[in-house]
Amino acid sequence: MQNDSLFIKALKGENVERPPVWMMRQAGRYLPEYIALRNKYDFFTRVQTPELACEITIQPVDHIGVDAAILFSDILVIPLAMGVEVQFIEHKGPILPKTITTQKDVDGLIIEENAIATLEYVSKAIKLIKTELNNRVPLIGFAGAPFTILCYLVEGKGSKNFDTAKQFCFTQPKLAHQLLNKITDVTIAYLQAQVKSGADAVQIFDSWSGLLGPKEFNEFSLPYLNRVADSLSQIVPVILFPKGSWYALEELSKSTASAIGIDWCIAPKVARATTQNKKTLQGNFDPCRLLLPVPQIQKEVKEMIDAFGKNKYIANLGHGILPNIPVENAKAFVDAVKNYKST
Amino acid sequence: MQNDSLFIKALKGENVERPPVWMMRQAGRYLPEYIALRNKYDFFTRVQTPELACEITIQPVDHIGVDAAILFSDILVIPLAMGVEVQFIEHKGPILPKTITTQKDVDGLIIEENAIATLEYVSKAIKLIKTELNNRVPLIGFAGAPFTILCYLVEGKGSKNFDTAKQFCFTQPKLAHQLLNKITDVTIAYLQAQVKSGADAVQIFDSWSGLLGPKEFNEFSLPYLNRVADSLSQIVPVILFPKGSWYALEELSKSTASAIGIDWCIAPKVARATTQNKKTLQGNFDPCRLLLPVPQIQKEVKEMIDAFGKNKYIANLGHGILPNIPVENAKAFVDAVKNYKST
Repeated sequence: MQNDSLFIKALKGENVERPPVWMMRQAGRYLPEYIALRNKYDFFTRVQTPELACEITIQPVDHIGVDAAILFSDILVIPLAMGVEVQFIEHKGPILPKTITTQKDVDGLIIEENAIATLEYVSKAIKLIKTELNNRVPLIGFAGAPFTILCYLVEGKGSKNFDTAKQFCFTQPKLAHQLLNKITDVTIAYLQAQVKSGADAVQIFDSWSGLLGPKEFNEFSLPYLNRVADSLSQIVPVILFPKGSWYALEELSKSTASAIGIDWCIAPKVARATTQNKKTLQGNFDPCRLLLPVPQIQKEVKEMIDAFGKNKYIANLGHGILPNIPVENAKAFVDAVKNYKST
Repeated sequence: MQNDSLFIKALKGENVERPPVWMMRQAGRYLPEYIALRNKYDFFTRVQTPELACEITIQPVDHIGVDAAILFSDILVIPLAMGVEVQFIEHKGPILPKTITTQKDVDGLIIEENAIATLEYVSKAIKLIKTELNNRVPLIGFAGAPFTILCYLVEGKGSKNFDTAKQFCFTQPKLAHQLLNKITDVTIAYLQAQVKSGADAVQIFDSWSGLLGPKEFNEFSLPYLNRVADSLSQIVPVILFPKGSWYALEELSKSTASAIGIDWCIAPKVARATTQNKKTLQGNFDPCRLLLPVPQIQKEVKEMIDAFGKNKYIANLGHGILPNIPVENAKAFVDAVKNYKST
């Protein structure tokens, strides 16, 4: 039903009049309507109550006018489904009190159907969202990449360098691959369930892959990104976003994914050259620049689209929107894309 | 006197039998001899007492056998000298309670001679170190890059993304450049004083430049790196280490610096090609990999040197050594470089 949408057309590489636009973390903390719900319900209530997840998912479609909705959820629902306790302390980030570091820990994880069964609330939310959206825009499902989920399982919390998680991979590679395979199995089943419920595309967030060098990325991240992409790309367009892994662009352009997300450190022309125009590219406005005056945002958005080209391109930020971005600036970003005319 | 040292020869691009080796943060938290002093003296006492700074600087020369010593100090002595309060809470990182964000704040900073006058303890430490080293190995002086110092002045603490500091630069560029110029003036005078006291080379740490995209790097980091390099490179070899700014390698290879430090995300062959072999390269072993068994460290060090080539190369880590690295592994890294033979 969404094949005529700009977003799906851009993912399929079809010509468009202007690129589609959405923003990572568009359903969230910069929106007063979201903050009102955050003040009433704790994080897991918001994620696990289909009606709330639906309302939050649709807020940026109604208030900002983005060309795609993205499911309101969190990448850490996967550890939770695998039987690992996850605590969310507002403004503090996640804590996993019992980390996964031994063979026994890995053996004890809940996998496949048993894990997915506990994620029924996501399927319900997606069905509700699709009904409420009523084909206005497509819905993006998502999951964390296996390496990024491993980072949290092993480190037990957010971290600047995830040294403990990396050291686990480097010193116990066999166990790391067992863990990555289990995460991958659950993630594939989870994303397939999202598609079955109505997701029109899926994005894989590898938020911490950029902490790996090229060799380590090829060992601990890429094979699992590819396995996820291969298992989904027959049924739905897949977007891979390995944040900071600029060195992997050429390799990623050989994947079965439709699109690759990039951050603002990669110049558009470099990204196009490295991927040889094989993939749709998504990004890469620095969220910090959304604090600039609106006329400057408009100017820079135009320059960004000119540099990427209007086809095979999805306008987005290079990372999640920041809590202190004024709503009118977020809207100015989106409107600037919508008003794009090539000269 | 140090012109015959491997380290200075590598910086000058002269042929060597094997590359020199040192490790970022080699004087520090993984060394039992350092921890003993840390348990007795607080951070600023260690930094500001020439005898203690000297002892700590020489520890890794004595115990690990590195080919260069680096002054034990901190990049935040510059804010301190400029009249900004800096608190160090052990294991927590720095806090600057009064951040610099307005014209009045910038105008109120202490600059040039008045700032340098308070850094006399560094000159005393360097003279003491040079006497104690007695020409065994060269001594590296250092400072933070102006952009990285701005990050701390504006943000007031360590941060994953330094969003506040970046937003300051993007929304108040004129004031940011005023601030960067003041920091640069003090930094140049400070490094010249270090050289006058005996430093044989200097390294500029731009720890946070990788948070900027290429355009922003060219505006807020590069001109100041170049101004520092230009003011020092006539008297001493300069090493620039803009962590994470892989996209700037080509531009940096046009600078007057002798060497460029790189992290493990940049493959040696990519770095050589991008810098067209114009500069000595320094790096780039992932500190996490120092937890591997010694035979594997030996193997990977050999591969690293083979990939960079033994000339115009300084073996080092791609970032500071981690507190949990066993001393024998650090030593194995250094010894593996010293035992290098090309095949």
